[in-house]
Amino acid sequence: MTSFRHLKSVIRLNELAEDPIDLTEEGALTPKRIDGMIAEAAKLKLFYGTERVSDNVVGALQDLAEETQAVKKMEAMQHGQVVNFIEGFESEKRPALHTAMRDFFDQRISSDTSQAATQLAYKELEKLRAFLNDVESKEQFTDLVQIGIGGSELGPKAVYIALEAYHKPNRRVHFLSNVDPDDGAQIFHRVNLEKTLVVVVSKSGSTLETLTNEQFAKEYFVKAGLNPKNHFVAVTGKGSPMDDPQQYLASFYIWDYIGGRYSVTSMVGGVTLAFALGMDRFLEFLRGANAMDKMAMKNDLKCNLSLLSALLGIWNRNFLGLPTVAIIPYSQALMRFPAHLQQLDMESNGKRIDKRGHDVDFDTGPIIWGEPGTNGQHSFYQSIHQGTTVVPLEFIGFKDSQYKEDVVYSGTTCQEKLLSNLFAQSIALAVGQKSANPNQFFPGNRPNRILFGHRLDPFVMGAILSYYEHKVAFQGFIWNINSFDQEGVQLGKKLALKIVDQFAAKRQGKSLDPKNFPLGQAYLRHID
Amino acid sequence: MTSFRHLKSVIRLNELAEDPIDLTEEGALTPKRIDGMIAEAAKLKLFYGTERVSDNVVGALQDLAEETQAVKKMEAMQHGQVVNFIEGFESEKRPALHTAMRDFFDQRISSDTSQAATQLAYKELEKLRAFLNDVESKEQFTDLVQIGIGGSELGPKAVYIALEAYHKPNRRVHFLSNVDPDDGAQIFHRVNLEKTLVVVVSKSGSTLETLTNEQFAKEYFVKAGLNPKNHFVAVTGKGSPMDDPQQYLASFYIWDYIGGRYSVTSMVGGVTLAFALGMDRFLEFLRGANAMDKMAMKNDLKCNLSLLSALLGIWNRNFLGLPTVAIIPYSQALMRFPAHLQQLDMESNGKRIDKRGHDVDFDTGPIIWGEPGTNGQHSFYQSIHQGTTVVPLEFIGFKDSQYKEDVVYSGTTCQEKLLSNLFAQSIALAVGQKSANPNQFFPGNRPNRILFGHRLDPFVMGAILSYYEHKVAFQGFIWNINSFDQEGVQLGKKLALKIVDQFAAKRQGKSLDPKNFPLGQAYLRHID
Repeated sequence: MTSFRHLKSVIRLNELAEDPIDLTEEGALTPKRIDGMIAEAAKLKLFYGTERVSDNVVGALQDLAEETQAVKKMEAMQHGQVVNFIEGFESEKRPALHTAMRDFFDQRISSDTSQAATQLAYKELEKLRAFLNDVESKEQFTDLVQIGIGGSELGPKAVYIALEAYHKPNRRVHFLSNVDPDDGAQIFHRVNLEKTLVVVVSKSGSTLETLTNEQFAKEYFVKAGLNPKNHFVAVTGKGSPMDDPQQYLASFYIWDYIGGRYSVTSMVGGVTLAFALGMDRFLEFLRGANAMDKMAMKNDLKCNLSLLSALLGIWNRNFLGLPTVAIIPYSQALMRFPAHLQQLDMESNGKRIDKRGHDVDFDTGPIIWGEPGTNGQHSFYQSIHQGTTVVPLEFIGFKDSQYKEDVVYSGTTCQEKLLSNLFAQSIALAVGQKSANPNQFFPGNRPNRILFGHRLDPFVMGAILSYYEHKVAFQGFIWNINSFDQEGVQLGKKLALKIVDQFAAKRQGKSLDPKNFPLGQAYLRHID
Repeated sequence: MTSFRHLKSVIRLNELAEDPIDLTEEGALTPKRIDGMIAEAAKLKLFYGTERVSDNVVGALQDLAEETQAVKKMEAMQHGQVVNFIEGFESEKRPALHTAMRDFFDQRISSDTSQAATQLAYKELEKLRAFLNDVESKEQFTDLVQIGIGGSELGPKAVYIALEAYHKPNRRVHFLSNVDPDDGAQIFHRVNLEKTLVVVVSKSGSTLETLTNEQFAKEYFVKAGLNPKNHFVAVTGKGSPMDDPQQYLASFYIWDYIGGRYSVTSMVGGVTLAFALGMDRFLEFLRGANAMDKMAMKNDLKCNLSLLSALLGIWNRNFLGLPTVAIIPYSQALMRFPAHLQQLDMESNGKRIDKRGHDVDFDTGPIIWGEPGTNGQHSFYQSIHQGTTVVPLEFIGFKDSQYKEDVVYSGTTCQEKLLSNLFAQSIALAVGQKSANPNQFFPGNRPNRILFGHRLDPFVMGAILSYYEHKVAFQGFIWNINSFDQEGVQLGKKLALKIVDQFAAKRQGKSLDPKNFPLGQAYLRHID
């Protein structure tokens, strides 16, 4: 495969990037342009008239997708082909089958590999249904503590918070992730242990933070005279050290073809979300994700929202040269969703080699950050509008609120004010403002797009989750990088264990060999 | 004043930046280097051996501080001179006197302006003490809802969460900021209104989100048969529309020389933090901030941590060309502190003109983002280690935990594991790793520094807050931009009101004039 920078479409896009559309010009951004630049699928619309793209650019981006066979690779992924690999070097060599975790509805994928994965996933779902029915009938648990880190926390927590309006009454979930002991102390001061279920999530059964926190949690139960075995559930790989009925009330399985950051719809998110939402709503969430999965295999950009978004992102990153992306939901419920996307995108595409093991000579995944609007408007928007580093924005918004509790104040509801701000910002960032006062001059041409839905319900949440999973995967396919491994986290772990050993030695009163990782010792000396 | 790019020291720094120290070279990062690159003040240490600076670079940065009279400007700010202005154009023309809000201890600033501000601030503090004593003696309130947005939420909330371990028993605070009605609905479903105090914060008394949310909140009280007047307190400017004893139990004052993002130690943070912590601990917090304020007026980089940090940041931003900064506290308690710093830094320094009204021809404030470690390690660190956009990091860590509840697991405590990870990451990012497997190659030279304290208590929290306030102010002084205004937020507000009017017209059944902001109408058509 030709490397990214030498693709025909990339050469064309570089030419087009020399003179991108100037949205601040009179007549550039019009209602007609807004009307014409909308894609739609799975109950979501994508407005992209405020991106710095012309029809020519969109055409060349579509050529880029074709030249890199992006949709074919998406099909291959969903069909269970091995997509997680680096040619010629030791690598994980696995499929990435998170879409199989929710392929229970229409137009199911026909390949043997993905059907087998779907069947296994469905078995876990049935186990979970029985387990939760049992919990419910005994009125055993009101609180759940999920112990897990990275993908075992971020996605499940973001979705849990996003759908709080749909929770069953009297169900609370707490997430314990950080090895910082204060994280756990706060949670266990707050819950009634007798009524608390603990879900420990680790695919390998060996994540240091998670095992440490599990031990930390168990001590609170033991001190309270409770048997942890009656409160602890494992989500782990079959046969892992954590797959042990002696220690857990139940085990739910995940597989090595489910990456942590793609695991929300597996049992990693499933146990907790179904506990909080009930099984029916959890299935609606899966249904929404599944609906968007299907759209990601369409060649038509007007309904393949993930591909369109991936291409717009590549335009901003590789051709307009913008290093970051801000995800701004005009929805307080999505407050932790940018943190999930930060992992999803940066762990997947923050890579420096392509799938042939060659150093890339172009930029890969950008820095992802963001906070909800309207809050951001009173915080970092100063820089967004007038800073020297241009930030492309991905807005998310909904016509209706979740609770439908609102108040009319000076003639409009809160929800109407929220939407007014969303659309106003999108326009303001694109068109800017001329002024004789240099402090009131807004350069504009800040690219942005809006993902828009009717209301944030379980189905729509699932569709949004899948939309982003596939946006990230498409960018990886087009850049020809491996979006499914994370070798970059190993070095830090390795060095941390050396310092852990130094602490352990000190604790045992042993003197440290001065040759043993002296840089670590230097820090330890200064904190004494 | 010579513009930034033409300063002698800047020309010298540009030369030095052509060949910065390579930390991946054998013998570059040594224990000796770590030992030699530490600054210390107000119970905090700053380790900066893992920045890409040599003694020559630090020397040239010190010249830059002198050439731009950075410390003199800091003194001027703390003495109440007008620092918030743009020459020759309409601007706010005010002092920035947040340091006066806590200048109650040693070596008080002697100027009339700042002493007057301090006296006024002390009067509010005394009012607050009396008010809280009264609340306490009547056992009136267990919950407090702070309604405010931007600086009226981010800083107070970050500090509230950071010091949860020091809260008085049975005191809970909720923050309502977003105009999204679901934000408020969730809070008011959760609290017992009879025992709830509401603090409404708006300097002008006219912030749209805040007034809307106040109305939203009042309706819950009225529906519950409670008189809002007995539950609502105002924090506002004297004489603002909110300074009204008919409507509020009490008013606490702030002044136009306190910017929202610098207001945590004023009554904006004060009412809520003193409610949660008690007055003594709130005073300790002020004492910590004050201690660091004094250090910011020292010429010696070994104890002026804010100036040193500002200079290192300028090196990374303007000379190494790095567009973002990640703030990574290895402390779950500081989970919302990066969001506060995002506002503090990006709203202060995300500017495109200098104080003479000229367009800048260099980069100003970077994009600020971050999440706690160790969590980030399992999320975006892949990109931090191996991504194509280098991210400088500002770590924060503490020797001891807050609760001191811990467990020994495989030979070490959680806190020891946390610290091991912090120091290991700092080293790993700097030195990288060579490997024949390109996926296990780490380029290193990722600049980072560590702000380190004994424990995160109220004093230390105050010192850290002040450290960052002055880091930001110093960068503004050196770039000669105005860090104290925020004209960049006006355009979005203006356009939002146009769409609000369109919603209001629709609500009244009026037809919209097609010439009236047609771009807004285009969006409204598509959401119907």
